[in-house]
Amino acid sequence: MSLITLLSDFGPGKYVAAMKGVILSINPEARIVDIDHDVSPQNVLEGSFALASAVNYFPEALHVAVVDPGVGSSRRPLVVECERGLLVGPDNGLLFPAAQVLGFEGAFEVKEEKYCLPKASSTFHGRDVFAPVAAHLSLGVAPESVGPPVRDMMELHFGTYHVSELEVKGEVVFEDRFGNLITNVPAEALPTWLAPGRTAEVELADTRELPFHQNYASGEEGEPLLTISSDGFLEIAVNRGRASNLLQARQGSTFTARKPRPGKA
Amino acid sequence: MSLITLLSDFGPGKYVAAMKGVILSINPEARIVDIDHDVSPQNVLEGSFALASAVNYFPEALHVAVVDPGVGSSRRPLVVECERGLLVGPDNGLLFPAAQVLGFEGAFEVKEEKYCLPKASSTFHGRDVFAPVAAHLSLGVAPESVGPPVRDMMELHFGTYHVSELEVKGEVVFEDRFGNLITNVPAEALPTWLAPGRTAEVELADTRELPFHQNYASGEEGEPLLTISSDGFLEIAVNRGRASNLLQARQGSTFTARKPRPGKA
Amino acid sequence: MSLITLLSDFGPGKYVAAMKGVILSINPEARIVDIDHDVSPQNVLEGSFALASAVNYFPEALHVAVVDPGVGSSRRPLVVECERGLLVGPDNGLLFPAAQVLGFEGAFEVKEEKYCLPKASSTFHGRDVFAPVAAHLSLGVAPESVGPPVRDMMELHFGTYHVSELEVKGEVVFEDRFGNLITNVPAEALPTWLAPGRTAEVELADTRELPFHQNYASGEEGEPLLTISSDGFLEIAVNRGRASNLLQARQGSTFTARKPRPGKA
Repeated sequence: MSLITLLSDFGPGKYVAAMKGVILSINPEARIVDIDHDVSPQNVLEGSFALASAVNYFPEALHVAVVDPGVGSSRRPLVVECERGLLVGPDNGLLFPAAQVLGFEGAFEVKEEKYCLPKASSTFHGRDVFAPVAAHLSLGVAPESVGPPVRDMMELHFGTYHVSELEVKGEVVFEDRFGNLITNVPAEALPTWLAPGRTAEVELADTRELPFHQNYASGEEGEPLLTISSDGFLEIAVNRGRASNLLQARQGSTFTARKPRPGKA
Repeated sequence: MSLITLLSDFGPGKYVAAMKGVILSINPEARIVDIDHDVSPQNVLEGSFALASAVNYFPEALHVAVVDPGVGSSRRPLVVECERGLLVGPDNGLLFPAAQVLGFEGAFEVKEEKYCLPKASSTFHGRDVFAPVAAHLSLGVAPESVGPPVRDMMELHFGTYHVSELEVKGEVVFEDRFGNLITNVPAEALPTWLAPGRTAEVELADTRELPFHQNYASGEEGEPLLTISSDGFLEIAVNRGRASNLLQARQGSTFTARKPRPGKA
Repeated sequence: MSLITLLSDFGPGKYVAAMKGVILSINPEARIVDIDHDVSPQNVLEGSFALASAVNYFPEALHVAVVDPGVGSSRRPLVVECERGLLVGPDNGLLFPAAQVLGFEGAFEVKEEKYCLPKASSTFHGRDVFAPVAAHLSLGVAPESVGPPVRDMMELHFGTYHVSELEVKGEVVFEDRFGNLITNVPAEALPTWLAPGRTAEVELADTRELPFHQNYASGEEGEPLLTISSDGFLEIAVNRGRASNLLQARQGSTFTARKPRPGKA
């Protein structure tokens, strides 16, 4: 398993490059693919969502993720074994949603210093712990040899949502580059009245009647709409426009979608 | 042909990573190189210019480009066969200039679903259509096997320019990171009076007499100048400064360069 | 030596892609890793610091760096031979600190046109000179065959710092994405009173008593602190906050750290 992916909040610069240098020093044959380094600084929720979305599309790989406000504290460094790959990163919830996607099997705390850089710094475990551990795993080191099993890995969930006969409540978990608002409500949880071809009253900063479309292009230009995101979640978007601006919403905004009353829609 | 390049307006994050995951799932030997993912959202013109500039410097490769405001509409997904490589992307003009650069031979509409992801989403053809098609092509699938030939591929041109004995009119097609203004007038179309060593009256927001230099460093620091861009187009720049700020111009700005009257220059 | 790294101030777009295309056209087996392309435009100091930090973590490689405000002028293109790799870039100080890190052995001026692109442009030596030279070197061309030796390579130092019994004066050489302020004072130059577990009076825009911690997480949330950066320099940071904002400092800011008077701390 020589494919290693990287996700961080470091920005795409010298810190990530140092991680790649460390990996290639240990395993010159490693293939490295970036997932995302523009996660908002120290935003574990945003990083965990990006990671869980992306890993689903990869062949078996080693996924290293570092959004780590607690670096140097007692938070544990983890290796997580899954059916479809391995995850490496801090025990702060970041890896949890991706582990669900990949089929969680077990977690181990990194304690074995021989798999880390000598003289690991206290401020940059991405380079000094997670990168070298991943490189050693890619060479065949067994996950359980990095340290003791962990039974209480920290969980992280994308907020709560509530679906009833008349309304769906949830929150915006990610705003993408186009201003699309991806919510935490999975497509499979949506009631039959909240589906393509229907409309719903959606309350964010204000309340509007929005059509539910198969894709952006089916909407009127500049008008807000509901759709299913490419990740399989309810999404609020604007055809050729920015939903976040038009509807004054962002990551963390809560919304309610209500079934239109008969005779009104 | 295992070299695959990617260009998009997705930003360099999880959407691009998902495309790479899909490609590597189908062809683990593929080599992937990013061209640009910071194309302004939905700006097909800007993306087409970046693509056409870059592909010229690559060995034979598969170039996947996705700037796709019409995703989910009836716009066709294309594979374009060229003398020096293949292009994959939407039929909205994005691929046209690059196809001219690489030597256009023929285009095909992607209809064969076996080369796409099962259950392609309506909002993310980059991941569900273009990436898997490219990966299959990189394994040797013939371009004509993806679907029927297309005779009326959408064209896109970098605006119009006009060259006469006394003036050159054109437009700014790209503003780079340094604030340099790259125009749509190819170096080979310039008249003899608009050449290194000469000066011209250039009208943008105002009118100035600009020297034409071989390179930035030959200009006075902070002063605007004309030069030939590294892509071979007339460029308006400032030595160690930002032409876009100083001259209040941007992508889409039109300009006129006039031959100085004798006795004036 | 088929590993080639790239650093520039081009932004991560089509200019960098063209360099990669040129490299892969000459050496299809080259492995290319990006170090940083978001160096502030024409900021040679910032680029040299990022380069020197990153190269230290790489196995033997060819490092191409282009922050080049003097492109097209008489500044020389260089190949620098080091114990632990080769550097390729302009002779403007950019390569000097990295050469110290890698063990400087000698420098050569690129004069041999057969290793450059035919018809090199005057504005883009990254693509037309440095990329093809690096690709040829990666195929085994000897550094001394690119041109004559250079005895007076331009030096660049990260400003001056001064350490005395009672105070340390230095400057901020890099502000990272988290607002951490990395100074030019190496950890090994610090006096015994400026060490983890101690405090110091630090003067930037104002003067504050700051604790010196092993890591960010040991500090109070939102409070400024001193630490050792992951690169081994004195760093001013804020646990889960931005030191640059809180202390109104940035790249180039000078600071003084004074030993607290007995009875005061």
